[in-house]
Amino acid sequence: MTSGLSFLIAARRCEIDALDQLARTSELVGAIGRLVHALQRERGMSNVFLASHGGRFADQRGPQIAECLALEQQVRAGFDRLEAEHHRAVGAGHGARLFSRIAWVLPGLDALPALRRRIDALELQPAQAVAAFAKLVAGLLAVVFEAADGATDPEISRLLVAMFNFMQGKEFAGQERAFGAAALALGRGDDAQRQQWRHLIESQERCFQVFIDFSGDAVRTLWHDSQSDAVLAELERLRRKGATSVPADALLSQAWFDCCTRRIDAMQTVENCLSADLRALCDHKTAQARSELAAYRQLLGTLAPQAGGALFFDDAQQAQDTTPAQLGRHLERSVLDMVQEQSQRLQAMSDELDTVRASLNERKIVERAKGLLMAHRRLSEAEAHKMLRQTAMNQKRRLVDVAESMLAMADYLPLEPAPRR
Amino acid sequence: MTSGLSFLIAARRCEIDALDQLARTSELVGAIGRLVHALQRERGMSNVFLASHGGRFADQRGPQIAECLALEQQVRAGFDRLEAEHHRAVGAGHGARLFSRIAWVLPGLDALPALRRRIDALELQPAQAVAAFAKLVAGLLAVVFEAADGATDPEISRLLVAMFNFMQGKEFAGQERAFGAAALALGRGDDAQRQQWRHLIESQERCFQVFIDFSGDAVRTLWHDSQSDAVLAELERLRRKGATSVPADALLSQAWFDCCTRRIDAMQTVENCLSADLRALCDHKTAQARSELAAYRQLLGTLAPQAGGALFFDDAQQAQDTTPAQLGRHLERSVLDMVQEQSQRLQAMSDELDTVRASLNERKIVERAKGLLMAHRRLSEAEAHKMLRQTAMNQKRRLVDVAESMLAMADYLPLEPAPRR
Repeated sequence: MTSGLSFLIAARRCEIDALDQLARTSELVGAIGRLVHALQRERGMSNVFLASHGGRFADQRGPQIAECLALEQQVRAGFDRLEAEHHRAVGAGHGARLFSRIAWVLPGLDALPALRRRIDALELQPAQAVAAFAKLVAGLLAVVFEAADGATDPEISRLLVAMFNFMQGKEFAGQERAFGAAALALGRGDDAQRQQWRHLIESQERCFQVFIDFSGDAVRTLWHDSQSDAVLAELERLRRKGATSVPADALLSQAWFDCCTRRIDAMQTVENCLSADLRALCDHKTAQARSELAAYRQLLGTLAPQAGGALFFDDAQQAQDTTPAQLGRHLERSVLDMVQEQSQRLQAMSDELDTVRASLNERKIVERAKGLLMAHRRLSEAEAHKMLRQTAMNQKRRLVDVAESMLAMADYLPLEPAPRR
Repeated sequence: MTSGLSFLIAARRCEIDALDQLARTSELVGAIGRLVHALQRERGMSNVFLASHGGRFADQRGPQIAECLALEQQVRAGFDRLEAEHHRAVGAGHGARLFSRIAWVLPGLDALPALRRRIDALELQPAQAVAAFAKLVAGLLAVVFEAADGATDPEISRLLVAMFNFMQGKEFAGQERAFGAAALALGRGDDAQRQQWRHLIESQERCFQVFIDFSGDAVRTLWHDSQSDAVLAELERLRRKGATSVPADALLSQAWFDCCTRRIDAMQTVENCLSADLRALCDHKTAQARSELAAYRQLLGTLAPQAGGALFFDDAQQAQDTTPAQLGRHLERSVLDMVQEQSQRLQAMSDELDTVRASLNERKIVERAKGLLMAHRRLSEAEAHKMLRQTAMNQKRRLVDVAESMLAMADYLPLEPAPRR
C-alpha cells in the first residue's frame, strides 16, 4: 500500500523525466537549426551554380556540402538518441507525432546524395533544386514544430515557439532570396510575381513578430542589432526595384543575393543565441527540479508515513465547526499543503502551456485545411498549399483566414471521385 | 544510423505504450466508480444514522463499510500499479497531474477510519459527515477527470469524458438526496435553500447532458430505461413539495430519501455498462494497434532499408517537370505513403482529441477561478466554491460564466494582505 507521499514524489519524477526529454529534444532542435542553415546556404549556391550552368560556386559547393554532411550526422545522432530513450520517457501521443515527423524527413536526408549528383550533372533547373531543398527544410522544421507543440514546460515551450518561428521566418527569407534573385535576373514583373513576393515578405514578418513576442529582452536586442540599418535599407531598395517592372539585370540580381545573404547570415547569430538560451534553461530547470525532489525526500523522511491523513477532513468540518480549538491549530507545513501547492503549480503550468501552444494553432489550421484539400481534391501537398495561397492572394486575405473558412465549409466540399475507378 | 522505417515503427510503439497506459487508467476509473458508489451509500446511511442519533442504519453501516474497504483496496492497488509502471509509459506533464491528484486523495482514504469512529461515537453533525464524504468523493472524481483529460486516444477519451460526467452527475444526485432529506426533515423552505436545491438539480442535468452527448446508443438507451417514469414522477413531486414551504415532515423526508436511492442505485447499472464498454474499447484498440504493428514490421522486412529516399524529392520536381515518363511511374505502396498516412492519422486524432477535451474546459475554468479566489482572498477551496456559487445564484448566471468573468477581471482583483505579517 503506497502512501500519498510516494505519489507526491512520483509526480515530481514524472516532471523530471519530461524535462530530461525536453533537454534532449532542445539539443536536437539546435542541431536541426545548424543543419537547416547549412542547407539554406547549399541551396543558394546550387541555385546560382545551376543558373550559371556550372560557372559559379563550383569550388565553394564542395566545402559547403562537407559541412552539411557533418551537421547531418549530428542531427541523425540526435534522432537516434530520442529513439533509444523512447521507452523510458517519451510515451503518449506526442512521442508518436514527433517520431512520425522524423520518419518523414529521414528519407529526404537519404535522398540528398542523389539530388546533389543531379545538380553536379546540371540535370535540374534552378527552381527544381530550390524546391527540393525547400521540401527537406520544411520536413526538418516540422520536427521542430512538433517539439515545440509537445513541450510540457511553459517556459521551455515559449523558447521553442520563438525558435520555431525564427527558423521558419529565416526560411521564408531564404525563399525570398531565391525568388528575388530569379525575378531580377529574368526581369519580368507581373502581378502574380509581385503577389508571391509580397506573400514571402509578409510570411516572414509574421514569423519574426511571434519570435519577438516570445523572446526575452537580450535576444530581442541582439535581433535588432543583427539587422543593420544599412542592410535593411538596401534590402528595401531592391524589393522596391523588384516590385516595378525592370529589365533583366544580372548585376542587380547578384546585389540582391548578396544583400539577402548578409542578412540571413546575421540571423544565424541570433539563432545560436536562442539555442544556447534553450540549453541553459533546460539545464537550469532540470537542476532545480532535481534539487526540489531531494528537498522533498528529506522533508518527507521526517514525517510519519501517513501524515496528512488526520487533517484531510478538517476544512470540510470547519465550515460548520466553530470551536476555537479547531481554528487555533497551527500545524507545521503538512503533506496536504505540499500536495495542494504542487497541484496548483501543475495547474498553472498547464494553463500557461495552453496559452503558449495557442500560438501554434495558426499553422495547425493551415495544415488541416491542406489535408482537407488533399483528400477532397486529390492534390499533392505542394498543390494544396499553392491553391490555398492563391486563394488568399486573390481575396487579399491571410492564409490562416482562408484555411479557417475552408474548414468551416468542409461539409459542403464535394468529394472528388477516385482516379481509375 | 537509423532509417525512417525505424521511426515509423517507433511512432507506432509509442501509441501502443500510450494505449496500454490508458487501459490501466481505465481499469482504475472503473474501480473508482465502484468505490464512489459504495461511499455514497455509506454517506447516506451515516447521514440518517447521525440524524436519528444512532437509531437507524446502525446494523447496515457495518456491511456497507466492509464493502467500502474491499473496494478501497482495489483502488489502492490500481494506484500502485500506475506508480510501478510510471517509468515505462506515463511520462510527460500529464502523468505528473494524475499522480498529484492521487497524492491528494490518498490522505483522505487514510483518514476514513478516524472519520468513521467519530460517526460511531455520534461526535459529528449529519451535515459535517456529508461534507467529509463529499470532499473525499470530489478527490476521487478529480482523479477520473485527470484520466479523461490526459487520454491520448480520442475514442477512449470520449468514453472517459462520458464516464466522468456520469459519475459527477450521480454525485450531484447524491448531494441532492442528502440536501433534500435534511430540508424536508427540517421543514424550512427559504429562498437560499430553494436556490441551492435548484443549483444541485441543474448541475446534475448538465453533467448528464454531456454524458448523453458523448455516449453510444446502447448506453443512452440503458440510461433512459434505468430512469423509470414512476421514480422520476415521484422525484419531481417531492422536489415540488420541497420548493414550497412545508412543515417539517419526517415521513416525507424518508420517502424522498428512498426515491433518490432507487434512482441512484439504478444509475449504477449504467455506470457498470460504461465501465465494461471502456474496458472492451481499450482491449480492442490495443489488439488492433499490435496487429497493425506486426503488419508494418512484415511489410517493412520486404523493403530495402532506405526505401522511400529515392522518391522524396519527386513531387517537388514534378511541379516543374512535365516529362510523361515521370508522371507514368506507378510505384508500389511506398514507405513515404505509409509515413504520410500515419502522420495524417495522428494529426486527425490530435484534432479530434482537442475537440473532445474542450468539453472539459468548463470545469477547468471553474477550478482556475477558485484558485484565483483562494490566492487573492485567502479562502479555503470550499469557501471559494461557495462564494462563486453564491454569486452565480445571486446573478442568475451559470457557474462557469461567473468564473469566466472573474478570470477576465483577474488583474483588477485586490490582493488580500497575508495574515499575521
